[in-house]
Amino acid sequence: MADFNLIKSLKRDQGGKIVLLVMDGLGGAPISPGGPTELEAAATPTLDRMAAEGALGALVPIRPGITPGSGPAHLALFGYDPLTYLVGRGVLEAVGVGLQVRKGDVAARGNFCSVDNAGRITDRRAGRIPTDQAAPLTERLATLELPGVTTEVRHVKEHRFAVVLRGDGLAGDIDDTDPQQTGVPPLPAQPRSEGSRRTADLFNQWIAKANANLKGEPKANSLTLRGFASDPALPAFPEIYGLRSACIGVYPMYRGLASLVGMDVKDFAGESPEEEFAAVARYWNDYDFFFVHLKKPDSRGEDGDFDGKASAVAAVDAALPRLLELKPDVVAVTGDHSTPALLKTHSWHPVPLLLWAPATVRADRSTAFGDRACETGGLGIFPSTDLLPLLMAHALRLEKFGA
Amino acid sequence: MADFNLIKSLKRDQGGKIVLLVMDGLGGAPISPGGPTELEAAATPTLDRMAAEGALGALVPIRPGITPGSGPAHLALFGYDPLTYLVGRGVLEAVGVGLQVRKGDVAARGNFCSVDNAGRITDRRAGRIPTDQAAPLTERLATLELPGVTTEVRHVKEHRFAVVLRGDGLAGDIDDTDPQQTGVPPLPAQPRSEGSRRTADLFNQWIAKANANLKGEPKANSLTLRGFASDPALPAFPEIYGLRSACIGVYPMYRGLASLVGMDVKDFAGESPEEEFAAVARYWNDYDFFFVHLKKPDSRGEDGDFDGKASAVAAVDAALPRLLELKPDVVAVTGDHSTPALLKTHSWHPVPLLLWAPATVRADRSTAFGDRACETGGLGIFPSTDLLPLLMAHALRLEKFGA
Repeated sequence: MADFNLIKSLKRDQGGKIVLLVMDGLGGAPISPGGPTELEAAATPTLDRMAAEGALGALVPIRPGITPGSGPAHLALFGYDPLTYLVGRGVLEAVGVGLQVRKGDVAARGNFCSVDNAGRITDRRAGRIPTDQAAPLTERLATLELPGVTTEVRHVKEHRFAVVLRGDGLAGDIDDTDPQQTGVPPLPAQPRSEGSRRTADLFNQWIAKANANLKGEPKANSLTLRGFASDPALPAFPEIYGLRSACIGVYPMYRGLASLVGMDVKDFAGESPEEEFAAVARYWNDYDFFFVHLKKPDSRGEDGDFDGKASAVAAVDAALPRLLELKPDVVAVTGDHSTPALLKTHSWHPVPLLLWAPATVRADRSTAFGDRACETGGLGIFPSTDLLPLLMAHALRLEKFGA
Repeated sequence: MADFNLIKSLKRDQGGKIVLLVMDGLGGAPISPGGPTELEAAATPTLDRMAAEGALGALVPIRPGITPGSGPAHLALFGYDPLTYLVGRGVLEAVGVGLQVRKGDVAARGNFCSVDNAGRITDRRAGRIPTDQAAPLTERLATLELPGVTTEVRHVKEHRFAVVLRGDGLAGDIDDTDPQQTGVPPLPAQPRSEGSRRTADLFNQWIAKANANLKGEPKANSLTLRGFASDPALPAFPEIYGLRSACIGVYPMYRGLASLVGMDVKDFAGESPEEEFAAVARYWNDYDFFFVHLKKPDSRGEDGDFDGKASAVAAVDAALPRLLELKPDVVAVTGDHSTPALLKTHSWHPVPLLLWAPATVRADRSTAFGDRACETGGLGIFPSTDLLPLLMAHALRLEKFGA
């Protein structure tokens, strides 16, 4: 992983502007033997030119063979070893729906469930109650109040929601209330240490109020909470790297992760690649580093839609000239992980990386951006956590180590 | 980094002779888009033949993206992780001008400065007094004597010099005497622990004598000391690897580093590649391992002289047959770091490596020695600290691990 103390001791205040362009799930695989991958099949004239001018490599997000979730995969791209910097499930769920999780907050994942008259669970997922029925219930829960703390509640999908407690002296080491079986009542929130006793009490008060509020609902007449977790207190990205850092992205999860590491998360209109790059242009003078997140390639990969994923990549390529007009000094185009349409899910395959830095790169012999060209590119195959120092170097933002 | 305990437990007393040929700053970059690097542009028929017979790779001196100074870059080539084995600035300055820094010695960097009648600094660099004026002053300081210890003083450049104290019970944890501002007197040497109190006292005695000696000088009438550091007590290279080890090099810094790790530093006439290889020949029967250092490629790179750097590499190539006549078993040709003429300074780009070992190498498909061929060579991209075990293996100097 990036050695944060080393980077902090070498970082310069001055240097080039860096764009980290993440096409979610970019890495792919041939859908039929001997064929191209999604990226290789996509029409990408601008990316191919950038590959010819720059250098290619491939990133290993976690460890060889390990398929990452989106949270750890992004943390790795930002330089945080995901095996060291653990973000609790409650926090990931909360930031995933756009809740802020700040220093000292405690978040949890919530499930609506069904209970009988004796309070025993009859369905742990409230019959997978559809979103249009569950969202209004979540809005009711969002109105509940607790003494001395604030609560935020947001619906996720179907029977799932997220809740965040905010106040002084909170701690997240609390056991799940989901008993993982039916026929018994939900468990109380149990503190795992003296330090989380008050937090557990507050959650139990909130659960009691929520149960009173939900009483009489046909399906979702109770709830369980899981994955209690404190703000992970990640070292601040802008301080580690000395970069004024902005996130341009549409999906709450990625905006939330950027927020957790201390980037400024920008609001803008639209969600197309053109609109995202226009947002970069709008904030260009205010930042040294832009994390730009594009979700579509992953979604099409998860659908098993090979051509759709290739088209999503081509759409990013078509919009790229807008970004290059800004004359960035360093552009890295990569993914957080691979999502081959072949597998319809995230995978462990190394992720293509294109490094474009006209003033400082040692161009390799690549002539087009593709998965296989990346695997044998001049940058080699290396951990995602080493990417940021490399981008810093190419932006001439690191002093020499030693004399 | 190389696992010294593992290597020590597996090393054989017998085996082939190894030459580590370091062309300082060898790694480069195209100076114009689409063009060759310095190494690729150089006429290197012998190196190209060795590449065809051997295998190529690329070395990362410190960590990805980190630009190394010469000291840490060489330590890494010798197998010492430069983030673990720190050599103090005073020691580097001293060995850089050819002073020996032995076990128990304490070294410091010195600056001549100007002080007013009240002893307050008016110029921290004595008006950057030129070398021809400062060198005679340093010679005067070299005559000063202290009770119970010996001192060595040598001029570096302009207002800079190095000083080494040698004796029993010395320690280098002492604060700088440079107050980093004018209008105040130099600080006394302050010990940071009880163990360095006597050493600080000795330095203060030496400073008092030096001030008396310099009194009346128009510019350099006082001095400050910085970067106090003890001999770093590096594990001995010849013991780790079981290699009788010689350094053939011209520049004091590299000779000093070789001395710090316990190699025998040989004297010889001349400084051309031919003369350095002739020195290798002269000592051939006495050693198992030769570290041969060639400075010119780095100097031309720092000048931004692309053609000059290519010529310097070609000159080494032209002399190589003299070395190969000795029938070495293993020859590694590499650099300590990259110094692209494009950047006119050290850089982070991985360093080309050619491994030639006719009896044991698995030749890759390379046909010529060049930066890009190395990045995609059969040895891969790996840390410099892993090089020595690889050379040991190719010299059949390591036993099997386990049964």
